[in-house]
Amino acid sequence: MSLRVFVTGGTFDKEYDELTGTLHFEATHVEEMLRRGRCMLDVNVEVLMMIDSLEMKESHRHRIVDACVACTETQIVITHGTDTMVETATVIAAAVTTKTIVLTGAMVPYAFGSSDGLFNLGSALSFVQALAPGVYVAMNGRCFRWDDVRKNRDVGVFEPLGEA
Amino acid sequence: MSLRVFVTGGTFDKEYDELTGTLHFEATHVEEMLRRGRCMLDVNVEVLMMIDSLEMKESHRHRIVDACVACTETQIVITHGTDTMVETATVIAAAVTTKTIVLTGAMVPYAFGSSDGLFNLGSALSFVQALAPGVYVAMNGRCFRWDDVRKNRDVGVFEPLGEA
Amino acid sequence: MSLRVFVTGGTFDKEYDELTGTLHFEATHVEEMLRRGRCMLDVNVEVLMMIDSLEMKESHRHRIVDACVACTETQIVITHGTDTMVETATVIAAAVTTKTIVLTGAMVPYAFGSSDGLFNLGSALSFVQALAPGVYVAMNGRCFRWDDVRKNRDVGVFEPLGEA
Amino acid sequence: MSLRVFVTGGTFDKEYDELTGTLHFEATHVEEMLRRGRCMLDVNVEVLMMIDSLEMKESHRHRIVDACVACTETQIVITHGTDTMVETATVIAAAVTTKTIVLTGAMVPYAFGSSDGLFNLGSALSFVQALAPGVYVAMNGRCFRWDDVRKNRDVGVFEPLGEA
Repeated sequence: MSLRVFVTGGTFDKEYDELTGTLHFEATHVEEMLRRGRCMLDVNVEVLMMIDSLEMKESHRHRIVDACVACTETQIVITHGTDTMVETATVIAAAVTTKTIVLTGAMVPYAFGSSDGLFNLGSALSFVQALAPGVYVAMNGRCFRWDDVRKNRDVGVFEPLGEA
Repeated sequence: MSLRVFVTGGTFDKEYDELTGTLHFEATHVEEMLRRGRCMLDVNVEVLMMIDSLEMKESHRHRIVDACVACTETQIVITHGTDTMVETATVIAAAVTTKTIVLTGAMVPYAFGSSDGLFNLGSALSFVQALAPGVYVAMNGRCFRWDDVRKNRDVGVFEPLGEA
Repeated sequence: MSLRVFVTGGTFDKEYDELTGTLHFEATHVEEMLRRGRCMLDVNVEVLMMIDSLEMKESHRHRIVDACVACTETQIVITHGTDTMVETATVIAAAVTTKTIVLTGAMVPYAFGSSDGLFNLGSALSFVQALAPGVYVAMNGRCFRWDDVRKNRDVGVFEPLGEA
Repeated sequence: MSLRVFVTGGTFDKEYDELTGTLHFEATHVEEMLRRGRCMLDVNVEVLMMIDSLEMKESHRHRIVDACVACTETQIVITHGTDTMVETATVIAAAVTTKTIVLTGAMVPYAFGSSDGLFNLGSALSFVQALAPGVYVAMNGRCFRWDDVRKNRDVGVFEPLGEA
């Protein structure tokens, strides 16, 4: 049984452009990360877009939903910017109910030494195999249902709605 | 609800000793790895031993079993050398049946740039939260039951018994 | 005999702010870099400012010149943003003639995995010990006199004025 | 004017073999390190051998001397294990007097995150351009003449003969 990984960009895949001194996108690092994790799962990686999640519009989210519906896999991981990850999860949950879909991302780009990206990818790929159909956010070692999670921007962590 | 992480050493925690040019153990890297993963789980890390799993004797495995039985947590991750990880899992499975216990490790020390350790730790902490009681090995992005896994030493990956 | 290192900021010392997703300055990494290089030189590190060299004004450069004049050391390394490194070198050269002063920087922040910073710091600390009094720029493994160097912004490397 | 880099192995180039759990040699990392340092020097890299310097015999040192004599470059950097670096420097100094030759190495393999290798390579490439003909050891940010240096094995640093 194979898994699908949809790449949408986000901090996860940002790189430092040494000519301009700014952060930008080149190719995704997901394949390199899977190799580094010695991942032996049958994973199909597909880049849907490479954008900052603050720039994600309704049309982008429709593209993601369509891809989740169209693919043959029933276990899907989506790499996504953290700022609007919950919005995208909500849109997906309204449209897809028979697949297990886990969104994840990173607070620090994978290309930077101190990134949480590899930890989060390992986490998301594991939750997606073990959980019942539904839409989830995997961050900070935890897994949240799409309707019980928010990003706490003050401290940069995800938490359930009930947590202060 | 809190999780327990038992550290036993293994490649995961090996370091380069620059005075002797050999690999050895100092303190565990697990806490540093949890910080890097921005892990917000309530995790109690306890170092049981710091040894190469090829040096693990019956007495060491009894110590691990005793610790699994004695702790109040019902979700336990054990970091372990890969060479005898399956043997230890087998001993634990004979003694502990009401807890979810996931063993993991690394093919390359965390202290080296290209380690799979952070990926594996994220994976193990996720499987331990999602799976039913039992003893498992989480490596290569996959999770195996203790009685259906072996390390394929020729290629350095874990596989189910049925896989060639 | 001791050396002085003056820190002024620049890409060299930039970090990723995970709450805002932007690059900013915290503490300098120079001491950590000296430890990593197992540097046994008697080095006095002093932070003069932590700014992007594009924001460097005349008053900042006067502060750097004053510090070069005032310190007792005759061998000085200055970490500096690459964009206006040559301008600062020119101002220093007009004021200080009896000391060996080497400016260096980085194209990628030290905190990011692929930084050239450690290479450049090793280079600058070596040239400053070996060269006659004067003001120099050490980048790309080369050492340039202050009046025969420019940053080629198209390719992100330093070159002598005569090179196309 | 071009420089020559002769690679002989040493800790500098050691890697972790994940199948055996031991340190061994594969290809040299020098070219990758030069790219990371954005080095724009005209450098010819040549691998003479890939061995631990404790295994270096008279015949190996003769090969190194012959290579130093035969090459057209007059500025030569040699990467070398630290344990017998001074012995090799002594043999070269007896045979080559008209070139500037700088030996360097690393206390921790470049492939490991915390290596001093990039710092040392930047240092050696700089000293070799700036110093008069002679044979030198560049380690710990310092440059020593071949006849006034020893490795202090207790602390893992190089020092002049007069230093306690």
